[in-house]
Amino acid sequence: MSSSLSNGGATDAKASRTSRLASFYSEVQTSRLNHSLPLPSVLRKPFNVVDGPKSSAAGNPDEIAKLFPNLFGQPSASLVPSESGLGSDQKLKIGVVLSGGQAPGGHNVISGIFDYLQDQVKGSTMYGFKGGPAGIMKCKYVELSSDFVYPYRNQGGFDMICSGRDKIETPEQFKQAEETALKLDLDGLVVIGGDDSNTNACLLAENFRGKNLKTRVIGCPKTIDGDLKSKEVPTSFGFDTACKIYAEMIGNVMTDARSTGKYYHFVRLMGRAASHITLECALQTHPNVTIIGEEVAAKKQTLKNVTDYITDVICKRAELGYNYGVILIPEGLIDFIPEVQQLISELNEILAHDVVDEAGLWKKKLRDQSHQLFDFLPPAIQEQLMLERDPHGNVQVAKIETEKMLIQMVETELEKRRQEGAYKEQFKGQSHFFGYEGRCGLPTNFDSTYCYALGYAAGALLHSGKTGLISSVGNLSAPVEEWTVGGTALTSLMDVERRHGKFKPVIKKAMVELDGAPFRKFASMRDEWAIKNRYINPGPIQFNGPASNALNHTLLLELGAQA
Amino acid sequence: MSSSLSNGGATDAKASRTSRLASFYSEVQTSRLNHSLPLPSVLRKPFNVVDGPKSSAAGNPDEIAKLFPNLFGQPSASLVPSESGLGSDQKLKIGVVLSGGQAPGGHNVISGIFDYLQDQVKGSTMYGFKGGPAGIMKCKYVELSSDFVYPYRNQGGFDMICSGRDKIETPEQFKQAEETALKLDLDGLVVIGGDDSNTNACLLAENFRGKNLKTRVIGCPKTIDGDLKSKEVPTSFGFDTACKIYAEMIGNVMTDARSTGKYYHFVRLMGRAASHITLECALQTHPNVTIIGEEVAAKKQTLKNVTDYITDVICKRAELGYNYGVILIPEGLIDFIPEVQQLISELNEILAHDVVDEAGLWKKKLRDQSHQLFDFLPPAIQEQLMLERDPHGNVQVAKIETEKMLIQMVETELEKRRQEGAYKEQFKGQSHFFGYEGRCGLPTNFDSTYCYALGYAAGALLHSGKTGLISSVGNLSAPVEEWTVGGTALTSLMDVERRHGKFKPVIKKAMVELDGAPFRKFASMRDEWAIKNRYINPGPIQFNGPASNALNHTLLLELGAQA
Repeated sequence: MSSSLSNGGATDAKASRTSRLASFYSEVQTSRLNHSLPLPSVLRKPFNVVDGPKSSAAGNPDEIAKLFPNLFGQPSASLVPSESGLGSDQKLKIGVVLSGGQAPGGHNVISGIFDYLQDQVKGSTMYGFKGGPAGIMKCKYVELSSDFVYPYRNQGGFDMICSGRDKIETPEQFKQAEETALKLDLDGLVVIGGDDSNTNACLLAENFRGKNLKTRVIGCPKTIDGDLKSKEVPTSFGFDTACKIYAEMIGNVMTDARSTGKYYHFVRLMGRAASHITLECALQTHPNVTIIGEEVAAKKQTLKNVTDYITDVICKRAELGYNYGVILIPEGLIDFIPEVQQLISELNEILAHDVVDEAGLWKKKLRDQSHQLFDFLPPAIQEQLMLERDPHGNVQVAKIETEKMLIQMVETELEKRRQEGAYKEQFKGQSHFFGYEGRCGLPTNFDSTYCYALGYAAGALLHSGKTGLISSVGNLSAPVEEWTVGGTALTSLMDVERRHGKFKPVIKKAMVELDGAPFRKFASMRDEWAIKNRYINPGPIQFNGPASNALNHTLLLELGAQA
Repeated sequence: MSSSLSNGGATDAKASRTSRLASFYSEVQTSRLNHSLPLPSVLRKPFNVVDGPKSSAAGNPDEIAKLFPNLFGQPSASLVPSESGLGSDQKLKIGVVLSGGQAPGGHNVISGIFDYLQDQVKGSTMYGFKGGPAGIMKCKYVELSSDFVYPYRNQGGFDMICSGRDKIETPEQFKQAEETALKLDLDGLVVIGGDDSNTNACLLAENFRGKNLKTRVIGCPKTIDGDLKSKEVPTSFGFDTACKIYAEMIGNVMTDARSTGKYYHFVRLMGRAASHITLECALQTHPNVTIIGEEVAAKKQTLKNVTDYITDVICKRAELGYNYGVILIPEGLIDFIPEVQQLISELNEILAHDVVDEAGLWKKKLRDQSHQLFDFLPPAIQEQLMLERDPHGNVQVAKIETEKMLIQMVETELEKRRQEGAYKEQFKGQSHFFGYEGRCGLPTNFDSTYCYALGYAAGALLHSGKTGLISSVGNLSAPVEEWTVGGTALTSLMDVERRHGKFKPVIKKAMVELDGAPFRKFASMRDEWAIKNRYINPGPIQFNGPASNALNHTLLLELGAQA
């Protein structure tokens, strides 16, 4: 990688770096270090950047225009082959920051930017801001070198420079960011993050441009949740790996269910705002029941509706002699159920202002519907709702173990049906939560390559003088050589939300679309999956051989390819 | 496989079987179907069976001799190359049964027996008893054919014929087994199971021999827990795969911990009787704290000791600036702590005979030490101890979420130290239980090959007329060709336990030995792992390329090889 080294030297250096790591790296980790990362052909030869038409916004363009006077309307950019190339050999100083939760592949985005500078703008300098946006504000950074970056190639996690959840929001914070940009003489900054972080990236780009700073800002789409995507950004990185890790576990649990014949496994899956992960895992594994939050919300379903649906499937399966099954539940289910939201907001009020008496008289302050729902909930969940408060006194919805709640509610409903003679079997629920184990896995070949291209493209966009774009790599169902590369105007992804009487720009989360190809495919199959056993065990992620380059179903279906 | 087919025909048949499966098998599952299974060279050529010296028992040989008058003292057997071979071409009728919990590789044991018969005793018949030992007693079986067996090659789970936990114990049940053996004219039966099931297999062998039935019985060592092993049986199958699946998840959680820098992950691992899984996972991943049940028991530690040890590490790490970590806990921890056992037995008594009053007066019936311990436990665990009873009214220890209990106890202890000024940081615990997802994964290359050899050997032992042996494949750190093959006298693994005034034969569970190489290696490293971050991420199980043929640490260390 370090181009000043002779070939022999490079090999020696690699060997020494690898041996330094050897005792802390597994054989698979070590083998991934030298996994080759193919680039789209447009990035392998001289290219130029071509602008598209003027852009608008995802909603309320007038407000977005006011919020981004310098950036609104700027075109998206595409890289195209060009014999002359960018024609600039000025050395660059580029910073990079990881923002928010981990997603497999983040290190490869950094490797991609780094290699772009090494390959195309020799003598450039790259800084990694430590611990997320706070690192920018406090000017805490490390200068990246080949030796520093190399051990993280194709590795999971964000531990190269770590991440953080701080935001650059207040005028003082923007001032701090400016000071860092000036101090380090930054030509560019790459912000690797989700919807919020990319909104923040765009605000930074606008601010730097408004202050006539040379520092340009490019975003990269990161989130295992898969809810940051658009026409030009087909997927966020990390989604592929996380889903495949969860699907491996789900497949194993399915085989276990079928072998044992006596357990219903309720699996809650990470992904609070949108149910993409749950949907993708369903498409990979064919569970008996899958709850999609967006459908629950669209149909205004109650917790009772969801419980009845699951119970119906269990009873039908019992008639067929199957007393086992697998049920997928999105982490954010509760957030999608209007009546639960209502109950929680009433509870927050009551707990903030009233005394909760042992006798339960406080419950009379709940509206009728909320009171009924509260009484319908299992005692353990009632307790969680009353006791688990965040520092602001609010219920911590993410701490509610929805899968255990549903097991208890299904148990109660089955008991009722047993009394009515409609159910005669034994029900045994097993709960699972698959979350943290998926955020930091070794990235799949897809995420490895995709991230490297995103990073390389971010380098190219900065090199060409662009700002306020999100790195966009498309045509992903084609071979890597044919992938398209460009940048999408971040303002074009934005809408506004009214908060505290002010308009705030937001990149709208991409929710599961009920008329989208992935959901339609699922909806067309789920009745068969419910009754018949169509379980698929995807197995562990492979880096070589069969399935090692398979794309996920969501991406394939959204790209119009056959999954 | 079916040797009557021409080569072309075999390929066509394979293709048709594969296409029949294609829609329910993932790409990895499909690719595993044709993964080749090398055999030890002694099984690939004509061989004979040579007896060793007369055997004894693991303990109380006189009692074992009384319990097994027909089998006690019989020698273990070894397969050795021999030009003449076994010299028997009489067709065989062989039954197979899966007993107890799932372990990856069970299907390959069946494939191995099946292929042995196809290859070496043409025209033989094989029956799979359905749903475990109950299938023998009820004579519920399926006749196995190439087409039936093929789709399960190298696949996880026990779903080919399923398993069960029934035992053949009473005279009536032995009678039923005899009737089945006579009805199907069985020459042999292979029992694939853990310590209990293999004890049962030996009782069956003794019974059949005593009744002058021709039916011989061979056992196979199965359990992910790794606690069925001896000098001649180096490991039970499934342990390798399950540990590697858990280690993948632990490695991911470690990378997450290091990247986020703010969570302590408490990971409970399946394996109730022994802590082999926890120890192996520790050797693979290098966690900050690992609790080994056998050590806790040997040192007569209390729950407070365990809590203090974890808290000490957390405080030391805080001083070094690390407010994150990973802690492994064996599922059976509570069973290893004498004071907890005492409390549980007192609770069982009280709950069976006394009224539990709201005011807590019942607690006065506890002994002082138990009373103190009960008050020391977090309320949620107190509640579990009071409410979660099995049908016999006993506490369901397996349902106690030890990892959550420890998080709460560590929280309390840290709060105490905070008040004393000895701890100043934020502690955030995250709980995990890795269990079911490891029992039915696709078997590793090691488990695939090992199981196939175990099955093939079981076929050979039955063919040579042996009974009451457990299939034994050794020299596992050498290349597969050099693996040794034989059978170990089941009575030689046995001791007696006194139950209800009678001696009962048992194969003693192989516990983690505190002076064994795996524990010693761990003990020599754990202080370094506690303070420094030596995390290793083993990554997902690979079937091709790097690490795909790696042996686990426990096996390597016990075989005296370098892990």
